[in-house]
Amino acid sequence: MVASSAVPWEVQAEKCRKVLRDSLNPAWLLPAKQLPPATQLNVSTFFETCKLLSTRELEITATSAVELVKQMASGALTAVETTTAFLKRAHVAHQLTNFATEFMVKDALKAAAELDAYFKATGTLKGPLHGLPISTKEHIGHKGRIAHSAYVAWIDNIAEDDALLVQLCKKAGAVFHVRTNEPQSVMVSLKLPIFGSKLTSQHIDCSNPIYGTTVNPHNRALTCGGSSGGEGSSLGLHCAALGIGTDIGGSVRVPAAFCGAYGLRTTALRNPYQGVCIPGSGQESVRCVISPLANSVEDLNLFQSAVLDQQPWDIDVTLVPLPWRRIEPYQPGQITIGVIWDDGLVRPHPPVTRALQTAVTKLRETGVKVVNFEPYNHQEGFDIITALYFPDAARTQKDILAQGGEPVAALTEYAFSVSRPEPLSIQENWVLNSRRDVYREGYHRTMKERGVDMILCPAYVGAAATLGSGQYFLYTAIWNILDQPCVTFPTGLIVDPAIDCVEVGYKSRSAVDEIVQTV
Amino acid sequence: MVASSAVPWEVQAEKCRKVLRDSLNPAWLLPAKQLPPATQLNVSTFFETCKLLSTRELEITATSAVELVKQMASGALTAVETTTAFLKRAHVAHQLTNFATEFMVKDALKAAAELDAYFKATGTLKGPLHGLPISTKEHIGHKGRIAHSAYVAWIDNIAEDDALLVQLCKKAGAVFHVRTNEPQSVMVSLKLPIFGSKLTSQHIDCSNPIYGTTVNPHNRALTCGGSSGGEGSSLGLHCAALGIGTDIGGSVRVPAAFCGAYGLRTTALRNPYQGVCIPGSGQESVRCVISPLANSVEDLNLFQSAVLDQQPWDIDVTLVPLPWRRIEPYQPGQITIGVIWDDGLVRPHPPVTRALQTAVTKLRETGVKVVNFEPYNHQEGFDIITALYFPDAARTQKDILAQGGEPVAALTEYAFSVSRPEPLSIQENWVLNSRRDVYREGYHRTMKERGVDMILCPAYVGAAATLGSGQYFLYTAIWNILDQPCVTFPTGLIVDPAIDCVEVGYKSRSAVDEIVQTV
Repeated sequence: MVASSAVPWEVQAEKCRKVLRDSLNPAWLLPAKQLPPATQLNVSTFFETCKLLSTRELEITATSAVELVKQMASGALTAVETTTAFLKRAHVAHQLTNFATEFMVKDALKAAAELDAYFKATGTLKGPLHGLPISTKEHIGHKGRIAHSAYVAWIDNIAEDDALLVQLCKKAGAVFHVRTNEPQSVMVSLKLPIFGSKLTSQHIDCSNPIYGTTVNPHNRALTCGGSSGGEGSSLGLHCAALGIGTDIGGSVRVPAAFCGAYGLRTTALRNPYQGVCIPGSGQESVRCVISPLANSVEDLNLFQSAVLDQQPWDIDVTLVPLPWRRIEPYQPGQITIGVIWDDGLVRPHPPVTRALQTAVTKLRETGVKVVNFEPYNHQEGFDIITALYFPDAARTQKDILAQGGEPVAALTEYAFSVSRPEPLSIQENWVLNSRRDVYREGYHRTMKERGVDMILCPAYVGAAATLGSGQYFLYTAIWNILDQPCVTFPTGLIVDPAIDCVEVGYKSRSAVDEIVQTV
Repeated sequence: MVASSAVPWEVQAEKCRKVLRDSLNPAWLLPAKQLPPATQLNVSTFFETCKLLSTRELEITATSAVELVKQMASGALTAVETTTAFLKRAHVAHQLTNFATEFMVKDALKAAAELDAYFKATGTLKGPLHGLPISTKEHIGHKGRIAHSAYVAWIDNIAEDDALLVQLCKKAGAVFHVRTNEPQSVMVSLKLPIFGSKLTSQHIDCSNPIYGTTVNPHNRALTCGGSSGGEGSSLGLHCAALGIGTDIGGSVRVPAAFCGAYGLRTTALRNPYQGVCIPGSGQESVRCVISPLANSVEDLNLFQSAVLDQQPWDIDVTLVPLPWRRIEPYQPGQITIGVIWDDGLVRPHPPVTRALQTAVTKLRETGVKVVNFEPYNHQEGFDIITALYFPDAARTQKDILAQGGEPVAALTEYAFSVSRPEPLSIQENWVLNSRRDVYREGYHRTMKERGVDMILCPAYVGAAATLGSGQYFLYTAIWNILDQPCVTFPTGLIVDPAIDCVEVGYKSRSAVDEIVQTV
């Protein structure tokens, strides 16, 4: 990485913004006066009325990835049509939510045209992702393009190659059309009174000094979540057929949940992580994963099978050499689902509890056995994962920020402050690794003892956090420290203040709970 | 672990020796005058003439594990007969090589009798390891017995449970009858002039202050190798149908190679490591594996399938959930073997080169394609693995030695001295992890580019090291840093000074090479 401390941070950041501006196709941008007013919070249905997208384009962008591929295989749809539709939608969406860091219009349309030529010549698809536009979180490398991971000091870093996962998707026929925003520190936002820190009103959400803040398309007073926040907006607004983010504590699942998309966290060492630009490579105590966002479970499955059927472990030998499993869907009577209504540390908000109740009712109606699941010591999981996030006392990150010279958001400081003030020794790190393994084994054993096959729980304490509010993310991060696969999915419900009433007389359990209950 | 610093180390060590003495069945020990004289170096054929074992017992102990199970399945052999035969042989072998730390006569015969009763009642075997006596390296836990890992400070540590792998073997019908010796520090012996250390004439081989030195049954002036040295002697002398050791740099394969047995190093996180007593738990940069020794490839396969068919990953969730693969044996024309004649750092001795030549000739005769393989930067592998063995500057181990108060062998100091004098920081450890992954990927890519499916190379620079000589173990350790599976196997050849001539005029490449060429 090339540090650029000699240049003022604003100059460096402006470089990136120019790349973004220059990457836009002016023909697909609406004049400011045609955009919804800043006071209009829900912009998710703006596309239908904005007149930039044709009916056909609206149809295409509302179609699942699985169905789009089917249509391309039948010759009813071309890759250029598909890519154009998603590109146009992404342009408008960017004007609404500020979710993009760079469009790749020319490359995407060229790739799409080549796919169409291939199909015309052979009558077959290039691969299982043929013609599907995919958006990617900024720090996932694209050859010849900047990859900075929201660090100003890294703005002169040009990716020498596509990230391995991008390469595999391209081999499967995918088209990459837009790159998306992430917060400073690339952590899921975190705001907790730990180690004596005092709360402030500042935040990061999905915000950084380079591109500013990405907002939630369903309510622009809310955050899109983080850290794959741009991906949340992208999939929530159907700007891409699939998206790729990274997740070390909920960074794929939280933005998917906030924006109404599906987010998968695979187990570690499943998808190839090579070519992701991130500080602290070689940290293996809590492994970050790279995984998809989509608009259906079937689309997540399509992505995973397209990637793992290429046996990426024969290139990246760190990966587990395990094929993507094709299993027959379980019959309802075959599985037992345990429900975590409340992790015992921070109580979910009323709309979340109502969504869970609805899901449980639906599951029971189909014949699935659903039981309550008392969480297995989530405090222990919290203590381990927060100690392991920045075991070097975040010196790696702080050094890069110091090199860049950009302002450091208070919530970045918070994120770092979950670590001990001084770096852990290697021996202390080992002890935490061992505690982690004991915790994993204990959790798994407990599930088996209770006869529970999978767990249904909130993705977050609320429907989505307001911009500037604190975030408690253990409902997702617990599965990171356990290294369990999980999916967040929309319930189809929306918050209704008339029925989602705050419990009267609830006494908060802790300072963190207090904050979460009152935002 | 309970430290016992208040008690003199000799008193603690004597506790263990008493356990060993009390565990012997006097009826199976030979009077000193019936033993070979100390000057007789090769004791490997003593059993045939010692008259303690019947012809039938000699037959049983010369039979492969696979065949023993077949005989028990047909009713031609009982578990008690089998266990008794191996127990008797192990008693004599212990008098010859000092390889045992504890016999488990009563438990083993009780388990065997239960197996026989089970077979009588049901007509079926308990499992695929039914009635097979297995020896285990001392630091592999057995419920209710001491597990000290050759550290005096840990002598009061009583295992609360069998190690998970022992449990799985018992479920598969195995019998555990003897536990075996290991060197101080439980490292493969290492003696290299690094960081300015001066060579001395001291060594550890398979020696510790508790039980003393285990020697090589084929030549008692040579070491049995380490660190699973007792296991090497055990399998080399057919004292067990199978053995279990641990390997972080060659600790299963070196003793197997030195003693004429087969040794498998699985990839990491394949067999469950839970219940191994070892300092530095939580160290994950170079993972130690627990894996079998045997007297044939088929027996190694039997062990692995018996263990992995039980899906241990459903108990120890750190394990890779990958079944043991049943593959049809390759046809000779389907595979290409690359031969490493010399790793470029230290040249193998003439008998080793002759053994390789013999193997290559035999392989070519069967139609296998064999090509020379230029090693892919083994110096880089060496630099990474030596830095990662004791990244805490061996403080963990030194503290335990200080607690115990026992004398520290010079070669233990050497083993520790490969680490930097001061502990690495967590960030330095991360950098090494990343280098390791880059090296792994590069090695794999190179093999693929050259069309090489597997590599044949020396297990060690010589046939076996003399007691007190230096050891260079990168020929095995390179596969640890690469985390590749490998097997050492006997060639059937023996050293012949008449034909294994030292090259005249060879100029050594380095101080290490010089030492190895002149021992």
